[in-house]
Amino acid sequence: MNIDELETPVPVVDLDILERNLDRMAGYASAHGLGLRPHIKTHKSPRVGAEQLRRGAVGLTCATTHEAEVMADLTDDILVAYPPVGQARLARLMNLPRHVRLMVALDSAEAIEGLAEAAQAAGRSVRVLVECDLGMHRVGVVTPDDAIRLAQLVRARPPLEFAGVTFYPGHIRGTRADQAAPLAALRDDVDRWLGALRAAGFAPEIVSGGSTPTAFDAHEVGGLTEIRPGTYCYNDREIVSTGAAERADCAFTVVATIVSTAVPGQAVCDAGCKALGREPLRVGAGTGFGELLDHPEVTVKGMSEEHGILDLSQTTWRPRVGERVRIIPNHVCIVTHLNDVIHGVRGHRVETSWPVAARGRAQLV
Amino acid sequence: MNIDELETPVPVVDLDILERNLDRMAGYASAHGLGLRPHIKTHKSPRVGAEQLRRGAVGLTCATTHEAEVMADLTDDILVAYPPVGQARLARLMNLPRHVRLMVALDSAEAIEGLAEAAQAAGRSVRVLVECDLGMHRVGVVTPDDAIRLAQLVRARPPLEFAGVTFYPGHIRGTRADQAAPLAALRDDVDRWLGALRAAGFAPEIVSGGSTPTAFDAHEVGGLTEIRPGTYCYNDREIVSTGAAERADCAFTVVATIVSTAVPGQAVCDAGCKALGREPLRVGAGTGFGELLDHPEVTVKGMSEEHGILDLSQTTWRPRVGERVRIIPNHVCIVTHLNDVIHGVRGHRVETSWPVAARGRAQLV
Repeated sequence: MNIDELETPVPVVDLDILERNLDRMAGYASAHGLGLRPHIKTHKSPRVGAEQLRRGAVGLTCATTHEAEVMADLTDDILVAYPPVGQARLARLMNLPRHVRLMVALDSAEAIEGLAEAAQAAGRSVRVLVECDLGMHRVGVVTPDDAIRLAQLVRARPPLEFAGVTFYPGHIRGTRADQAAPLAALRDDVDRWLGALRAAGFAPEIVSGGSTPTAFDAHEVGGLTEIRPGTYCYNDREIVSTGAAERADCAFTVVATIVSTAVPGQAVCDAGCKALGREPLRVGAGTGFGELLDHPEVTVKGMSEEHGILDLSQTTWRPRVGERVRIIPNHVCIVTHLNDVIHGVRGHRVETSWPVAARGRAQLV
Repeated sequence: MNIDELETPVPVVDLDILERNLDRMAGYASAHGLGLRPHIKTHKSPRVGAEQLRRGAVGLTCATTHEAEVMADLTDDILVAYPPVGQARLARLMNLPRHVRLMVALDSAEAIEGLAEAAQAAGRSVRVLVECDLGMHRVGVVTPDDAIRLAQLVRARPPLEFAGVTFYPGHIRGTRADQAAPLAALRDDVDRWLGALRAAGFAPEIVSGGSTPTAFDAHEVGGLTEIRPGTYCYNDREIVSTGAAERADCAFTVVATIVSTAVPGQAVCDAGCKALGREPLRVGAGTGFGELLDHPEVTVKGMSEEHGILDLSQTTWRPRVGERVRIIPNHVCIVTHLNDVIHGVRGHRVETSWPVAARGRAQLV
């Protein structure tokens, strides 16, 4: 099948680029002795997860219980990098297949208490990473003393096991030049936190960090044992703006059709916010919600649910109704989450398709 | 089952409010002799669509081919209010069950040409509404002469049938007071366009307009025969800000759990942009991506994919880890599109659940 036969809007992944991206990160982690535990939120796909494991990933990282359930088919080493709070969530985690050596991240005594009760009732050991806030200010304990206090609580509650610490440097996402100072601060913080933990008798076996924008600097952060980048498999406009990937490394595009040029000065395609998501660019001067693969000067400047309005002010190109375009999205993890099927292409040939098996919540009632 | 037993984040619909909303709009349309053809993009659910038809809807409005395929089980009168551009899209439309009397909206000669060829090849008559731009500047021809020209093209290409005109007053979404002037302009425009069409021999059988924010003023627009509001079934923060519904009319909330309070001054819940969407409020002074049902002063001020950060600056309430909240989203149509299952509740009891059967694209390869 040719890519032009697909009904639009439709997400396609260039398989050559995907494979190159996977090879590159696996090679980097291997070269620096870092465990690579990819976050599967970006692809939510057993197909891509298996490719990551085949290239030496030590395990997989998930956020939702459904992601963990789906990825349990592929690996016995899963980190749920999300606080295990709530009875229903805990019940699903405890029901993961027994071959899974479950590890979770958390940042509160309440989460430890709930998890300990559930793990005890299930007769299941769970490894715990204490989540530390090293600058993002989203989740995570804010001082080394807080981390030590939680590590003590974990150790006091078998079958929980204190396995180490985790942090997410999501605040470091500027251009490469902008990243230098916060990366230096991060290195110092990690040194300080790990020193305090070791001094208190809680030497972490696992120190997990690393986002895609910072991934290729992870070896400069002393003490890190694992990284868990997600977006690197596909890349997107945001990652390119940080300098962690080139435009040519963007494997994922949304194919769209021009459906209207009736209103003068603009063209409307069928990829709106139900196909592209409404994610702003957070780095650099770029605007819009995506840019055209073949016309980098054209962005999606506005969206309705099923309409994307192209900004033609910087181009002499004038699309006609029926013409097709390919859009590099700002934030690919959201686009994956909007779709049930991804098509893998080489050139213009649709070589394969795969379900986004871990999207949704699959809540059982 | 109690609502507190559901794993979060999870969308729930208050059935009492839903039924009241459906009754209200059906009553309004009936009282004013307007055909109600609800846009199902908001609920994407045969369950809710059937309730709309049971209350007298003349048919249903869809945007995507998959929506039309799913709703074809319920009704024989479907308007696909979206330009039928592209071979794959046309093929799916022509494959709708034969009992469906298909009607489409379009705004270009190219769309007419493609549709005429497909309809002829399929031996299937298709009713056409010419889409007119009456101020939104998204799609639609921009002058009555353009509309007449397209109507002529349609009439020249049986099995296409010229059925009338359609417009979407999506630009009229301010508060009630702000709407007065643009509504008056819209009335004048509709008069002028319909006059020109009639004079040219293209008296429209159907004149379709009406969004949820303008729905209850539709009877004041002379010549309108049908309205196709969507959001009114659930309502959301945006609709409330226009004055077309009260806060108590919001049937749809996302139940979330507080998962972290580790970073001082904020609380983090598990409804991020993969659960809530990242839709800004476009009307009024409200900020954030949703507000709490039980704490209207608290909004979701920031989001990651699976984290929603609550703004506690306007409240003395201090949530604890494990506590549950219910969030009224800014734009409910997006939240529906993010979910596979909706739970219907009365009070705290989960009475029923239904699949969001028309979400996704269901592309067949």
